[in-house]
Amino acid sequence: MRHTKVKSLLNSETTISEVNAKGWVRTFRNNQFIALNDGSTINNIQCVVDFENTPEETLKRITTGAAVSVTGALVESKGAGQKYEIQVSKLEILGDSDAEKFPMQPKKHSLEFLRENAHLRVRTNAFGAIMRVRSVLAFAVHQYFQEKGFVYVNTPVITGADAEGAGEMFQVTSLPLDNLPKNEGGNIDYKKDFFGKHTNLTVSGQLEGETFAMALGQIYTFGPTFRAENSNTSRHLAEFWMIEPEVAFNDLNDNMDLAEDFIQYVIKYTMDKCSEDLKFLEGRLADEEKQKPQAERSEMSLLEKLNFVLENNFKRVSYTEAIDILRDSTPNKKKKFSYIINEWGADLQSEHERYLVEKHFKCPVILFDYPANIKAFYMRLNEDGKTVRAMDILFPGIGEIVGGSQREERYDVLVEKMKALGIDEEELWWYLDTRRFGSAVHSGFGLGFERLVLFVTGMTNIRDVIPFPRTPQNAEF
Amino acid sequence: MRHTKVKSLLNSETTISEVNAKGWVRTFRNNQFIALNDGSTINNIQCVVDFENTPEETLKRITTGAAVSVTGALVESKGAGQKYEIQVSKLEILGDSDAEKFPMQPKKHSLEFLRENAHLRVRTNAFGAIMRVRSVLAFAVHQYFQEKGFVYVNTPVITGADAEGAGEMFQVTSLPLDNLPKNEGGNIDYKKDFFGKHTNLTVSGQLEGETFAMALGQIYTFGPTFRAENSNTSRHLAEFWMIEPEVAFNDLNDNMDLAEDFIQYVIKYTMDKCSEDLKFLEGRLADEEKQKPQAERSEMSLLEKLNFVLENNFKRVSYTEAIDILRDSTPNKKKKFSYIINEWGADLQSEHERYLVEKHFKCPVILFDYPANIKAFYMRLNEDGKTVRAMDILFPGIGEIVGGSQREERYDVLVEKMKALGIDEEELWWYLDTRRFGSAVHSGFGLGFERLVLFVTGMTNIRDVIPFPRTPQNAEF
Repeated sequence: MRHTKVKSLLNSETTISEVNAKGWVRTFRNNQFIALNDGSTINNIQCVVDFENTPEETLKRITTGAAVSVTGALVESKGAGQKYEIQVSKLEILGDSDAEKFPMQPKKHSLEFLRENAHLRVRTNAFGAIMRVRSVLAFAVHQYFQEKGFVYVNTPVITGADAEGAGEMFQVTSLPLDNLPKNEGGNIDYKKDFFGKHTNLTVSGQLEGETFAMALGQIYTFGPTFRAENSNTSRHLAEFWMIEPEVAFNDLNDNMDLAEDFIQYVIKYTMDKCSEDLKFLEGRLADEEKQKPQAERSEMSLLEKLNFVLENNFKRVSYTEAIDILRDSTPNKKKKFSYIINEWGADLQSEHERYLVEKHFKCPVILFDYPANIKAFYMRLNEDGKTVRAMDILFPGIGEIVGGSQREERYDVLVEKMKALGIDEEELWWYLDTRRFGSAVHSGFGLGFERLVLFVTGMTNIRDVIPFPRTPQNAEF
Repeated sequence: MRHTKVKSLLNSETTISEVNAKGWVRTFRNNQFIALNDGSTINNIQCVVDFENTPEETLKRITTGAAVSVTGALVESKGAGQKYEIQVSKLEILGDSDAEKFPMQPKKHSLEFLRENAHLRVRTNAFGAIMRVRSVLAFAVHQYFQEKGFVYVNTPVITGADAEGAGEMFQVTSLPLDNLPKNEGGNIDYKKDFFGKHTNLTVSGQLEGETFAMALGQIYTFGPTFRAENSNTSRHLAEFWMIEPEVAFNDLNDNMDLAEDFIQYVIKYTMDKCSEDLKFLEGRLADEEKQKPQAERSEMSLLEKLNFVLENNFKRVSYTEAIDILRDSTPNKKKKFSYIINEWGADLQSEHERYLVEKHFKCPVILFDYPANIKAFYMRLNEDGKTVRAMDILFPGIGEIVGGSQREERYDVLVEKMKALGIDEEELWWYLDTRRFGSAVHSGFGLGFERLVLFVTGMTNIRDVIPFPRTPQNAEF
């Protein structure tokens, strides 16, 4: 008979005379009770083995991690915590798991140990929950934009353009590194490389995305992006997934509205679909917080934090206002900040962002209208001539989760800016074409997907919310 | 006032006294009729300019490609082909487009010319339609799997494993190529590279996907994959998007059922959502076919082909049966094939696949149980000891669209196969762990997304169904 998912069995409306389930043994108690999980839900189904009529040889093979097939009646459970259980009439060991060797023991492992076993950590409650939540969040992203008529655009991963300057790039090549072809000048002959030129992994699909927005109106990307930066922090990955909507005719206020509505939608969607996983993760976070000194613990539980974001508008604060707040703040006056804020024009550090979000406003904050010289070349210059229509969204515990802007739509102003920064116009001829032919006001933003997953799952290290993290000195699996 | 999408205006249920639309001029006829497109639909809205009361200067700036904002009454159109038009009371030029310089003239351009202007081709009817269809197809992929409880898994793009052998790989590095660090032995010191070892761009997420399927039950990937192969054909890209579901406890028959159901679902979904775009593309294909000799034209229109796939089961044929059919076929006997099929064991070429699909069966075909020695190491060996539980799905006009298999779940058999092929066990320790701990029957497949888009849009060159194609000697944009 065809097997039924554990999730369906646990949600059954009646008892069933015979069912089959397949999955992996989480625990086996008293030679009788299998906690069986098949990944369809965080919950296990209890399978009661008739141990008196089961060969000793078979019972010994029911170990943590073993794959089994159980057939029997779905009956109401006498035990607490579950409505149904399976009274096993037939048990088959599909794949053994040597209890002494299986790394995922039924005990608490350190997150570092689990990272070293990223191929197996997903068999734990926490990582099963994280990966299901991540998947549902990703789907919510697509559903939000598709419902609104946005077109999903797969911008290229390998790029010949390296002008954007969003960060250090990885080089992509098919040249033999131990025998590089040289040209007459003695330099590496990239004409012999696969693409006939020097190529990198993309840091952003924005520039290509803009060209599509200026034809299709509203587009979004959702794909991998890369940074070759030696940042060994809990918030950085060398390979991460980014979402970048771009909308023709949107100004910066529309852009803020879109970002806020979007984030609230995907969080709400995920809370609706993943309530059991989130409840588990809320408990996990509460346990973790108990290890911290009282003063460092969060005032809100995970679900309270998520609800808070749904129920409260993001506070919109200009960079200039933020500088005033920071300059007058206690940590600035008492010189507790590593970087003291003295004057307008300073780039904000993580410590300042955290102060604004976590201490001053105590809610998500949208900072906008930054000094032009600390932001990218493509941002729309304000009439004041010194600020640009940039926005960053800052989240409690996460920091920057969104960076966006209204784009400079004026050809002359854009070219002047590129010249000042030494950005090659010839290389970006196609980008400039959007301003040559039918230019218009447009805006967009980038959201680092893993930072959103961090926020929603309550995890604290970004390596724990992506299946196989890529970080300096680590590309295992 | 807030602008309204052209799609909404055209679908309005009533006339409206004042609306605003923003978009790009496709054509401007008789100094009076603007065909305005904003990318929300393939259809333009006709905007009737009061030319007698519009300054000559402004009229001159209404050129193909210009971005404009029009305000006026939405009224019933006297012209044929549209229900509504806008009687313009206010017109604003948002961005000019020099009619002499704008590459996308209102005439037919060659596909090659359009590829060289990939950033602008999306402003044409055909490419607007293709990109909307691509987007909806992508969403259908997610919706299908999510509805069935699959977990979306982002497998890594940068990989340290290069054992799978699915094709030539691109190297990823942050080392300075003009000053490579060397170790004591005089070789390149990859310990100094970003990840501390030699890394590549992934050719498949399957192996990582399997580890997740053995925990979460049913997973799918949908992400970019790469081949550094010098294949300058209409069916190959160096960078393309692949969908790879993997399901624990599925055997090869389940795998075929899944693939067939999946493909039919996404085509049906897209036909429902994109009827106008597909109708346009059907006409485009019909025009293209008219250029061909009668004998080479398709017997079916685009929509007939799509419906055919929905209404007919895919024909399931073993490799052995296929060889018999091919050996006895007229082109084989008359030596019309470039590769004559003489005996069992031959690898099938594109010409053979096309014969089976287009001439013999005249429907999509699933070939299965291939000789072990022409297939990958991880495929399940049959009891006959010489064939593996592989399957390829072949589509008319496209060739191979899906490749999949039941996986070898037996640790000993898998290790023996790897040894025979010289695949490093140590490098794939994590993959082998899935067979060490709780192994079980499982199956999956890979579907090249662009080939599916080719089929659904009726385009014939794969470079025309991805925004910015990456091919040998081409990484522009």
